[in-house]
Amino acid sequence: MEQQIHMEYAATKKEKPNAADLQFGRVFTDHMFIMDYTEGKGWYDPRIIPYQPLSLDPAAIVFHYGQTVFEGLKAYVTKEGEARLFRPEKNMERLNRSNDRMCIPRLDETFALSAIKKLVGVDKDWIPTAPGTSLYIRPFVISTEPYLGVAPSKQYQFIVILSPVGAYYKEGINPVKIAVENEFVRAVKGGTGEAKTAGNYASSLKAQELVADKGYAQVLWLDGLEKKYIEEVGSMNVFFKIDGEVVTPALNGSILKGVTRNSVIKLLKHWGIPVTERRISMEEIHQAHLAGKLEEAFGAGTAAVISPIGELAWNENQMIVNDGVTGKIAKQLYDTLTGIQYGTEEDIFDWIVEVK
Amino acid sequence: MEQQIHMEYAATKKEKPNAADLQFGRVFTDHMFIMDYTEGKGWYDPRIIPYQPLSLDPAAIVFHYGQTVFEGLKAYVTKEGEARLFRPEKNMERLNRSNDRMCIPRLDETFALSAIKKLVGVDKDWIPTAPGTSLYIRPFVISTEPYLGVAPSKQYQFIVILSPVGAYYKEGINPVKIAVENEFVRAVKGGTGEAKTAGNYASSLKAQELVADKGYAQVLWLDGLEKKYIEEVGSMNVFFKIDGEVVTPALNGSILKGVTRNSVIKLLKHWGIPVTERRISMEEIHQAHLAGKLEEAFGAGTAAVISPIGELAWNENQMIVNDGVTGKIAKQLYDTLTGIQYGTEEDIFDWIVEVK
Repeated sequence: MEQQIHMEYAATKKEKPNAADLQFGRVFTDHMFIMDYTEGKGWYDPRIIPYQPLSLDPAAIVFHYGQTVFEGLKAYVTKEGEARLFRPEKNMERLNRSNDRMCIPRLDETFALSAIKKLVGVDKDWIPTAPGTSLYIRPFVISTEPYLGVAPSKQYQFIVILSPVGAYYKEGINPVKIAVENEFVRAVKGGTGEAKTAGNYASSLKAQELVADKGYAQVLWLDGLEKKYIEEVGSMNVFFKIDGEVVTPALNGSILKGVTRNSVIKLLKHWGIPVTERRISMEEIHQAHLAGKLEEAFGAGTAAVISPIGELAWNENQMIVNDGVTGKIAKQLYDTLTGIQYGTEEDIFDWIVEVK
Repeated sequence: MEQQIHMEYAATKKEKPNAADLQFGRVFTDHMFIMDYTEGKGWYDPRIIPYQPLSLDPAAIVFHYGQTVFEGLKAYVTKEGEARLFRPEKNMERLNRSNDRMCIPRLDETFALSAIKKLVGVDKDWIPTAPGTSLYIRPFVISTEPYLGVAPSKQYQFIVILSPVGAYYKEGINPVKIAVENEFVRAVKGGTGEAKTAGNYASSLKAQELVADKGYAQVLWLDGLEKKYIEEVGSMNVFFKIDGEVVTPALNGSILKGVTRNSVIKLLKHWGIPVTERRISMEEIHQAHLAGKLEEAFGAGTAAVISPIGELAWNENQMIVNDGVTGKIAKQLYDTLTGIQYGTEEDIFDWIVEVK
């Protein structure tokens, strides 16, 4: 099953951005990985080629019916110049779970990861070295069959692109203001909320736009059924510390199974801090706040790692969390996770995969 | 605001398929319409060009976050060789409603329709003439900005492609078997169900695949909240005739506002047949069936026009509707709608728009 990856080097190299100018997902490296799928033939022709436009029939299914999945992970470089990934096998597992939900053929996870490692190796000098910077890796699958019938595509492409990204917090980790969303729904049980697929993100744009106009950084999504229970925040999982215990919504089919979420839970358990996955209502959070027991709130995801929540707006209630400053647990999680990622903390869980 | 459409004719013409070989959405005509959008500049450079692949950056937002909308309508040719559209202004209205929901800039509806008419005129000899055949028109907007942040794109393309399609029913209008979906959810209030956007279709693939394996043509979707109330069938709206009255689910925010649905309601009212838009539970349908009062069931949409339902499976209940044959109302609606479309029935509602 292991296939040979054909290599075509870029004739000219692009200029790399200055560390200070790095944003998120705007600049791409010199190369990309691509592989085709045709029904009956399977996945074939894996190749690393110069970064270039895709040429697709205007009737390609992805444009019309959004049959597509993606992943997001990062490559980091240590002080010693060693490139490494953080739990990439979890992303490959999730990619295949998303594929299952979206009727897309599975990928060989080991091979897909080896392709990512090879690509990162080829563009290794694109991994920025300034503190907090990294190389964002975006693997994705698109449905390419030119057919307007509503049916799973018989042709796909698996593509990996790389983007050097700046520190999420330009001035260090800082709390954000979050608005609880009461009108729009991101996902519902029986839908595609657990899959990392395009439609979930498209449907979030409107709510995000409306709260941004009011000065909030992100939306906190409630369940689609009763609009009572907390699901996730923006494109991150969410945690609360209430009276000494950390709680996070249980995976219920409409919440993304975050790799950072899982890492946070493992670290908290390792530290002996009580952590529970369960259903959490906004009313419970509000009551805890009124009782002075809502000690911390933070999001967890690949982009920001840990994103403290300093203010939570729910209907007419403005809840200031931990005096609007980063909490102790959030800071400890951020420092430990980024420490493991950049190689300044011991990798006690064997989470790091080196790129040769 | 009226812009000049630049015209580039195809150097060579493709061979047209035989009427007998026509399927749905597999073959495309010689030309396509395309127009660009950039924030600050608006929609610009409308052009009709030879049908050709799109060249897009692999980071284009449409591949990752599915910010896209589409429409579907048809061009018909009369015995006299006159090309015509059916209520196309309704599709343009809905396209802009979908744009609003998906944070895509609005199109000038009059101009978009004039572009469609011009394109259909250019490829008029592609409109098939055999009974039941037509030229399917697919206008769509894709987000093209190369950016991996979850935010509305600042660049788009509005594209129209055309596909000659065969008769939906090869041997005349015939009832289909439909399975009521209890596990998967298409859309929920607060989501994107009312918009014609990619994610709604992507999320329907799995349920459709599972019922197809059991011999059913389509899924009947229930509401995402209680899974009790009927929403739509496959990619059509749905109607039931119970004890002399025709009922259809009211537009509630998660149901597509179908053009054929609206036309069916107008025709029924014109004929003096009672028709009501309201909430309908599956339990009510089942009770009507047990009482011998479920007289007809049918879907309504652009592709099939009217699709009679001969069998409805709900949990352990197999309901045979109207002895599994096409009902009188369904037949009358089908004949009248297609009659108006092909010019053999009087266009009493002024629904037809001629293509010069």
